[in-house]
Amino acid sequence: MVTLSEQSDFTAIVTAQAVAAKDAARLLYTTTHAQRNAALAALKTQLLNHAPAILNANKADMERGAAKGLSAALLDRLLLDEKRLTALANSLDAIIAQPDPIGQITESWTQPSGIQINAVRVPLGVIGIIYEARPNVTIDAAALCLKAGNACILRAGSESLETARALHAAITAALESEKLPAAAVQLINTTDRAAVGALLQLDQYIDVIIPRGGRGLIERIAAESRIPVIKHLDGLCHTYIDKAASIPMACDVTFNAKMRRTGICGATETLLVHTDAVKTHLPVLLEKLFAAGCEVRGDEALQQLDARVIPATEQDWHTEYLAPILAVRTVASLDAAIAHINHYGSHHTDAIITDDVDAAATFQAGVDSGIVLWNTSTQFADGGEFGFGAEIGISTGKLHARGPVGARHLTTVQYRVQSNGAVRPV
Amino acid sequence: MVTLSEQSDFTAIVTAQAVAAKDAARLLYTTTHAQRNAALAALKTQLLNHAPAILNANKADMERGAAKGLSAALLDRLLLDEKRLTALANSLDAIIAQPDPIGQITESWTQPSGIQINAVRVPLGVIGIIYEARPNVTIDAAALCLKAGNACILRAGSESLETARALHAAITAALESEKLPAAAVQLINTTDRAAVGALLQLDQYIDVIIPRGGRGLIERIAAESRIPVIKHLDGLCHTYIDKAASIPMACDVTFNAKMRRTGICGATETLLVHTDAVKTHLPVLLEKLFAAGCEVRGDEALQQLDARVIPATEQDWHTEYLAPILAVRTVASLDAAIAHINHYGSHHTDAIITDDVDAAATFQAGVDSGIVLWNTSTQFADGGEFGFGAEIGISTGKLHARGPVGARHLTTVQYRVQSNGAVRPV
Repeated sequence: MVTLSEQSDFTAIVTAQAVAAKDAARLLYTTTHAQRNAALAALKTQLLNHAPAILNANKADMERGAAKGLSAALLDRLLLDEKRLTALANSLDAIIAQPDPIGQITESWTQPSGIQINAVRVPLGVIGIIYEARPNVTIDAAALCLKAGNACILRAGSESLETARALHAAITAALESEKLPAAAVQLINTTDRAAVGALLQLDQYIDVIIPRGGRGLIERIAAESRIPVIKHLDGLCHTYIDKAASIPMACDVTFNAKMRRTGICGATETLLVHTDAVKTHLPVLLEKLFAAGCEVRGDEALQQLDARVIPATEQDWHTEYLAPILAVRTVASLDAAIAHINHYGSHHTDAIITDDVDAAATFQAGVDSGIVLWNTSTQFADGGEFGFGAEIGISTGKLHARGPVGARHLTTVQYRVQSNGAVRPV
Repeated sequence: MVTLSEQSDFTAIVTAQAVAAKDAARLLYTTTHAQRNAALAALKTQLLNHAPAILNANKADMERGAAKGLSAALLDRLLLDEKRLTALANSLDAIIAQPDPIGQITESWTQPSGIQINAVRVPLGVIGIIYEARPNVTIDAAALCLKAGNACILRAGSESLETARALHAAITAALESEKLPAAAVQLINTTDRAAVGALLQLDQYIDVIIPRGGRGLIERIAAESRIPVIKHLDGLCHTYIDKAASIPMACDVTFNAKMRRTGICGATETLLVHTDAVKTHLPVLLEKLFAAGCEVRGDEALQQLDARVIPATEQDWHTEYLAPILAVRTVASLDAAIAHINHYGSHHTDAIITDDVDAAATFQAGVDSGIVLWNTSTQFADGGEFGFGAEIGISTGKLHARGPVGARHLTTVQYRVQSNGAVRPV
């Protein structure tokens, strides 16, 4: 229970952080790419310098987590050992290597009035990031925000707060070594929920909130926030095997899409198969799936094809398993596949396997999802695989950013207009 | 007072409209540019066919408005006479002439993994537009949404509902004549506030809300909405006369920026002048402003320059007058001008007058506003002047759309990926 006076304490503390972040954002706004990259390089150094403190802090979080009875999966997410810390430090190189997301002219044209207009990418301002256990989010988020000249306020999950504090100390050291304001990356230093509630009201200081975590967390934040939210919701992804698909490609790509990692949002959950491809394309794939321990839930045609297939229910078409389970449905046409995906899918990532160029074009133009793939595994739904250096999430919303969110999406556009004294006629 | 059962009636009616809009958006999603433009051309014809009904409806709205004691300014906004209706019908030509905002490839690249990625513009989906008196918004909004393949739900102000109904009948006739779903453009057929409340909860059907109206309306909607909102808030615009400004240009551009129309959001409200330019650049400008009936409120230096200048207070730097009043402040440097604008401004539109290329670049890179102009009147802050054919507002937010919002901003991006069977390594 939070008392009123505690709530107002949190409001005061978080507001002071937001004001400091906005001031820092003003300074970052005019930094050069070289300055921002120097801070990222310094962060890499400081992560290695601070390694003992970071590993100790993580050990404390892990012990507390084990005592609290966190699941093995959660503990594995929380773990930051020497190997992972080194990988995390090295991952900054990919962000440094990215081109400057700031200053890029995205459009340029001249009007009959004589005004010349350039649309130029500029920093967004202040970004609030609310996440759960993974310690790497602290570094990824700070680095992507810095790369694009933004200040950020980080709110780590209660399980990983010690680790986040130790990582944040390295960030602060890096900022100071490069003469950038420490307030450019701030951590909310409490696990109390009231601090998040206070943060979400500060729309005069914070430009966008990015939550990373389960659906419950994200929906609660979206409902409560006065600040625009970039959401990362379900990944109910489909692969559709067209009648004109290559059989080996259908088998390999679908197997990878389902089984490479079953717990990520880009994993295929439902396989759609053209009626004409069931007998030709599925037997080898099903063998491979069963051999790998995948459960298959299918419609009548699938059950007839293979006795190991469990009957699928309506609920299966709605389910993101995040597990080695695959729902399989036959469809009579390409249009039926598109209609199924637009109806049951989460508009995240969907693929077609076909050798028919027209079918691929119809599929990609008709499926209303952030990522639509042709002859490619849905597991490529990832900022790193898209070449963004890293990602802060995969947006399932349609506004501002859709699909993997990298530094280039943490920007806004500014119109720079010039003329030789143009005045507007009445 | 709305009773609970009335509220649930509105919820049921508005929900049914939103469901129908989402279905219509699915159909619009795959229409061609030729089909969408044909509907816009049909709308032009139908507006002229329906002219008698539209003019009669507007007469009824005008009479009701006059009886309710609406101000002359509001009645002028509400008025749709034959001349304005013809201009409105003709304004569709500019939207038709725009290039297709859909299908444009904004980025294209290949990754080392072999996947080839195209970012392609696609329709947003369903757009809710909530506005006040101006009848032209009904047509502008419907036309811009259609141009970009979106369905829309329109909520007109109570003063203009009769006119909106008559205009909507013309829209429906145009859609039907081109075999597009009538539900692609729907009108909320009540002036009851409860209908808006119901609309703002329907985030599973509606992708974005665009309010047009006073600050009160927009803030209420933003606070209440579960759906992302593209906001059009204050236009506290500045013109800065640098020490290196041409004297005649400073005079002409500033006069136009302030006085062409004082009631629009792009009108300059505060003039900043470099200390070194006060005696050289202001006398002619002040004469011109006073002659045109403009009130000038200035700091000490201004009052010393001209006895007609009224002392400015701190409040003046915060005020969007929308009237023939100009606040004038001297600043000691370019940096002081930028700092003033970033502190007091509304991040809408700001201009520098200078012949110094470096000063212009520093100003444009340092001022955090949607539009920054060099030697150009702030009154160019307008979708038509930007070449967007028309605008649905000028976004003062930083997310998704900033500055004038045309059809091209009522889109989202979709990543279309292809490869020759790429699977992601473990």
